[in-house]
Amino acid sequence: MEKQFPEAYAQFVKVCDTLEEHYRDMQDMEFTVENGKLFMLQCRSGKRTAKAALKIACDLVDEGMIDERKAVLMIDPRNLDTLLHPQFDPKALKIAQAVAKALAASPGAACGKIVFTAEDAKEWKERGEKVVLVRLETSPEDIEGMKAAQGILTARGGMTSHAAVVARGMGTCCVSGCSAITNFDEDNKSFVIAGKTYHEGDIISIDGSTGNVYDGAIATVDATVSGDFGRIMAWADKYRKLRVRTNADTPRDAKKARELGAEGIGLCRTEHMFFEGNRIDAFREMICADTVEEREAALEKILPMQQGDFEKLYEALEGNPVPIRFLDPPLHEFVPTEEADIEILAAAQHKTVAQIKSIIAALHEANPMMGHRGCRLAVTYPEIAKMQTKAVIRAAINVKKKHPDWKLVPEIMIPLVGEIKELKFVKDIVVSVADEEIRAAGSDLKYEVGTMIEIPRAALTADEIAKEAEFFCFGTNDLTQMTYGFSRDDAGKFLGSYYDAKIFESDPFVKIDQVGVGKLMKMAVTLGREVRPDMHIGICGEHGGDPSSVEFCHKLGLTYVSCSPFRVPIARLAAAQAALKD
Amino acid sequence: MEKQFPEAYAQFVKVCDTLEEHYRDMQDMEFTVENGKLFMLQCRSGKRTAKAALKIACDLVDEGMIDERKAVLMIDPRNLDTLLHPQFDPKALKIAQAVAKALAASPGAACGKIVFTAEDAKEWKERGEKVVLVRLETSPEDIEGMKAAQGILTARGGMTSHAAVVARGMGTCCVSGCSAITNFDEDNKSFVIAGKTYHEGDIISIDGSTGNVYDGAIATVDATVSGDFGRIMAWADKYRKLRVRTNADTPRDAKKARELGAEGIGLCRTEHMFFEGNRIDAFREMICADTVEEREAALEKILPMQQGDFEKLYEALEGNPVPIRFLDPPLHEFVPTEEADIEILAAAQHKTVAQIKSIIAALHEANPMMGHRGCRLAVTYPEIAKMQTKAVIRAAINVKKKHPDWKLVPEIMIPLVGEIKELKFVKDIVVSVADEEIRAAGSDLKYEVGTMIEIPRAALTADEIAKEAEFFCFGTNDLTQMTYGFSRDDAGKFLGSYYDAKIFESDPFVKIDQVGVGKLMKMAVTLGREVRPDMHIGICGEHGGDPSSVEFCHKLGLTYVSCSPFRVPIARLAAAQAALKD
Repeated sequence: MEKQFPEAYAQFVKVCDTLEEHYRDMQDMEFTVENGKLFMLQCRSGKRTAKAALKIACDLVDEGMIDERKAVLMIDPRNLDTLLHPQFDPKALKIAQAVAKALAASPGAACGKIVFTAEDAKEWKERGEKVVLVRLETSPEDIEGMKAAQGILTARGGMTSHAAVVARGMGTCCVSGCSAITNFDEDNKSFVIAGKTYHEGDIISIDGSTGNVYDGAIATVDATVSGDFGRIMAWADKYRKLRVRTNADTPRDAKKARELGAEGIGLCRTEHMFFEGNRIDAFREMICADTVEEREAALEKILPMQQGDFEKLYEALEGNPVPIRFLDPPLHEFVPTEEADIEILAAAQHKTVAQIKSIIAALHEANPMMGHRGCRLAVTYPEIAKMQTKAVIRAAINVKKKHPDWKLVPEIMIPLVGEIKELKFVKDIVVSVADEEIRAAGSDLKYEVGTMIEIPRAALTADEIAKEAEFFCFGTNDLTQMTYGFSRDDAGKFLGSYYDAKIFESDPFVKIDQVGVGKLMKMAVTLGREVRPDMHIGICGEHGGDPSSVEFCHKLGLTYVSCSPFRVPIARLAAAQAALKD
Repeated sequence: MEKQFPEAYAQFVKVCDTLEEHYRDMQDMEFTVENGKLFMLQCRSGKRTAKAALKIACDLVDEGMIDERKAVLMIDPRNLDTLLHPQFDPKALKIAQAVAKALAASPGAACGKIVFTAEDAKEWKERGEKVVLVRLETSPEDIEGMKAAQGILTARGGMTSHAAVVARGMGTCCVSGCSAITNFDEDNKSFVIAGKTYHEGDIISIDGSTGNVYDGAIATVDATVSGDFGRIMAWADKYRKLRVRTNADTPRDAKKARELGAEGIGLCRTEHMFFEGNRIDAFREMICADTVEEREAALEKILPMQQGDFEKLYEALEGNPVPIRFLDPPLHEFVPTEEADIEILAAAQHKTVAQIKSIIAALHEANPMMGHRGCRLAVTYPEIAKMQTKAVIRAAINVKKKHPDWKLVPEIMIPLVGEIKELKFVKDIVVSVADEEIRAAGSDLKYEVGTMIEIPRAALTADEIAKEAEFFCFGTNDLTQMTYGFSRDDAGKFLGSYYDAKIFESDPFVKIDQVGVGKLMKMAVTLGREVRPDMHIGICGEHGGDPSSVEFCHKLGLTYVSCSPFRVPIARLAAAQAALKD
């Protein structure tokens, strides 16, 4: 070109410099030369892998081309996803031989037993198995199974198929459009790749970053933030105003999240603390008890174990915030379904099997999502809230004794509040138990009682609610369900048609609906802070890890976003970008 | 007194005149005389029966003591209830002998077969039986059964027992605390009154206005508005600004409501128009169909019958408004549950019983209240909305031909809208079908397409929604469910504790929650009328017949309230009082 159109070439080199100087980024440029004249058609920042993007940004800073702010703004937070998922151990991968290669639909590495249906994925997961869900293609009804799986492999579908889009949203590894799969037989639960028949329970490994499928198990290693990634994250932390916490209810998850930069817990669910080991037996005794005394006796057995859970969490968080959400799910999620378990419960309760079955039947609900759950449980069974308060306060007192230098202020979070009197009723119970515990221990522990904002009425009456609530935390999953009036469990039946008709362009459970749900959030922040100007307000729905939602939360003036551990760096970067764009 | 304390007496007579003159009403007065000195302690308007209250008000007007306005304000709308329910035929009653007398807990007369459980009440009602629900006492879980019953008789409980309070709220006849009932045996479904054993299915009659219980059947007569009642109602109509419509979907209910003063229909549900006779077979064929063409063919069978239903309704309303709400319930409410019915359906569909069962199973929803229903059905199956549009428009064209003088403007109401694009999608279907029908018939029929406001997001985005919706109608039952995040079907499990703890003082499904739900309504009215200033906005939840809710609707500037036929006079009076108090 230099020889054939010297003038145009010289001009082009100059334009390139101008454009790269202007955009301060590597450019993809389109141009044409007609009759010796240069026409620039379009330019855009060049596409690159996440790793390359981080390196280019750091190099540009080191070369003095851009400053840290610009570097932070250059990285698309969504791309970090690829760096934040388990990868195959490089050594193990070197000796592994792929049996098929298909589309790298959603990054990460997964290894597990093959299951053929979403139901099986859920069931196997619940009994502790790691599974890879293999389907011809997925549909919205498979969501729960997709969540339960380590990874998803589909025989059909491209990069924008349901499986690919949803898996990327969930951060789950996915290989799609694997045409090497033949003889797929859902009924008999088998398929064939390269002449070998795979059955339910056989182990495979898939790499969503390369699209490779492997026979058998390959060891995986967790993601870390270091090198260029670490530098960019450090810069992001300098500029962001939103704090970033994590949704975690085990010391293991909390530790992982802290490694990825979480500054505390945003949501600690306590459900599993009623399930583990033999606690569930005691909790079932409580559910089947006839009197308050019997219920209290049953809960007394769980108390020391929950206290132990909280102590371990406080230890892992080293004085960073740990809001404990009191029991949320409806009681029918805790009762036995197997005949043998029902018999054991009947014997323990000195009741007949028929009596136990009738108690279980009475717990059935027409719409459990809108049923007897959240703080409604604390209103009908205050003894549950009392036990959880004791466990939280005793744990905090113990840990505080060991670590007097930590700023340990337990946060108790009351779920599903819709009315100020309801919150006051539960808070009064919490405060009277907590104060008695603190007095008895001769401690000077401080604590806060706050509430989830997840019912539209709580947002609408947030000024009232703030008179009692010392902090707010948006539960945007439930808030989205109630505001739209559709249940996430059932929406799969019609959301497909909604996307086809372009009524919805994104999943409101992934990206906050700023128009409707966002209006309620804004109302809650404004009304709440009118009453309690310095209250901390966070978000702990799954939206907390979605970049556009993080930006919205920044604009609303929230104190923190909380997301799953693996999304913490994404939230940190998105928060920094939101602050820098301001 | 005149003799003993002549001075105090003279003063007392003067005070009485002053007070009755001031309050312009008969007064209950408390006073004492100490050391010859008169002390007035308190006074309040004297209590009286509804009939007496109407007579006193009319007499006071005739005597020139008060004007019509004051007369309208004197009557407590809630008391009219006693005059608006079926009464026993006076002739039949004269020869009847009561077997027991208990508390007159909720007015009206009922006659029906004895059932012992709420479930039985529902089931028997569904197969066309009239039943009286007899219980030791009722609990919130009996609500559905109480609704299904003609009347409720309880062995225990006073005037503020659950049965009494709820029955009055529902307008259902109730006799409570009937201690004459002995040997009550729910398991064997029997009880004893005065030595006679009553079994399930035996007929009894109860009078909620007197508390009498009768063995066997006594004929009932419907309520009418005449005499003093009629005069007061005529005055009320002069002053009220709110129009009063009724919730009715049969010509019979509509006729009754018009006799009681309804100025049109506020809500016509179309559910039963898919159930009646052999329509349900065609609709089940639609549900089980594999293709659009099969679904259309099945719906084509229902079309002429629905058209006939609408023609009869238009005839009955004589040009008054009849908004038709398109199909709302989830499809699983329409599928067969009995094996025999499933076999018939399978044969008709050339499918196996297993295939039909799997179709039925696939319709199951975790939270049907928030599931695949309302306009979501029209998005996934536009053919249903097309069929209903044809039926509405064809019926209107036919009736208009017969009655060119009637102002017949069909109103099509789209339920459960939460997003403008969703409404636009359905409205576009309706408009294209309607316009084609009108063109083909060479008619100049006008019609309106509006929406229910029953999803919080619809209220929050009412300015957007009003760009497409030509009218709004608040569905406050669903709006209350979604705003509070609890399902009416399940709330019975915890509402008792909420009343005990004084968290709730009234049932939000009876009396509009003005603080939360009311805030959304106000927002919707303001936002909606900003875009479409002259749009008519109504309410058709059960709140439309509650006096305090009617007053709230007046203040919001709604166009009309709509309630069940028997509550129409209550709403008329409450609307007049709200206007006069302004």
